[in-house]
Amino acid sequence: MKFTAKIFVTLRHSVLDPAGTAVKSALEQMHQEVESVRIGKYIEMIINATDQEIAIQQVNLACDRLLANPVIETYTFELISNESN
Amino acid sequence: MKFTAKIFVTLRHSVLDPAGTAVKSALEQMHQEVESVRIGKYIEMIINATDQEIAIQQVNLACDRLLANPVIETYTFELISNESN
Amino acid sequence: MKFTAKIFVTLRHSVLDPAGTAVKSALEQMHQEVESVRIGKYIEMIINATDQEIAIQQVNLACDRLLANPVIETYTFELISNESN
Amino acid sequence: MKFTAKIFVTLRHSVLDPAGTAVKSALEQMHQEVESVRIGKYIEMIINATDQEIAIQQVNLACDRLLANPVIETYTFELISNESN
Repeated sequence: MKFTAKIFVTLRHSVLDPAGTAVKSALEQMHQEVESVRIGKYIEMIINATDQEIAIQQVNLACDRLLANPVIETYTFELISNESN
Repeated sequence: MKFTAKIFVTLRHSVLDPAGTAVKSALEQMHQEVESVRIGKYIEMIINATDQEIAIQQVNLACDRLLANPVIETYTFELISNESN
Repeated sequence: MKFTAKIFVTLRHSVLDPAGTAVKSALEQMHQEVESVRIGKYIEMIINATDQEIAIQQVNLACDRLLANPVIETYTFELISNESN
Repeated sequence: MKFTAKIFVTLRHSVLDPAGTAVKSALEQMHQEVESVRIGKYIEMIINATDQEIAIQQVNLACDRLLANPVIETYTFELISNESN
């Protein structure tokens, strides 16, 4: 079965986001009212797996090892089955 | 009114994604079956605006000028009103 | 006076680099012998300042607030005077 | 032989740098005089190769396939031999 995983990697709340601060400050200079800007990553992965459970394991492995930095980031994801029947 | 914008910046389909290729290849080395990995950005912005239309204009401005690189990226977003009533 | 700052932002040694790990693993799959890959940022800034001391202060301010994440990153820079005389 | 490659990946001059623009604008709001900010990547790679020529081939391969996006980026690198004799 084929699955699409939509993965969101975001900075932990306690961690500063200098790039987000830069965007917030730049928007204020353009006279926009912005309370906060936090910049993370969005990953789309298409995977093959025998069932949903295996697919979830694969996505967790990818996030834990290759996509998120556990010291400063957390992740969530949605898994969509690409099969129609 | 206060709004939360959830912004997705993704590479255009025609554009190579070397970082995504690296992750795909690394997963294959771990014996995972992966068809594609595309890495983009996910931004959460909290803004103040008099109404939804103004909020949408603000998000478009931020994306066009500061968050997305129009040569290679496109963006979509969801806007959520933080007001309860 | 005009100065060019060449700024290197790198992950602290104690911090995992998932994107670097992905590149290393992908290279190994291409039968390359790689011991480590660490991915940081490289920033070129052109600034105006009355003298070199002020220029250094400006670069430090930019790094501390907007370019480096102090929890996980450190930075170094070179400052080049663009004036010829 | 062991080599350290210091790799600089920068956006082509013709390509907009939204993240750099955000930092420049944020610095101006802090009353800093900045002419331009361009944000790229800095990668340190330690590789094993029989000689310098092979090492250069390895670095080019890594850059062309995994580190730089040829549509918008270019790269340069320095190669340092880690052997003392």
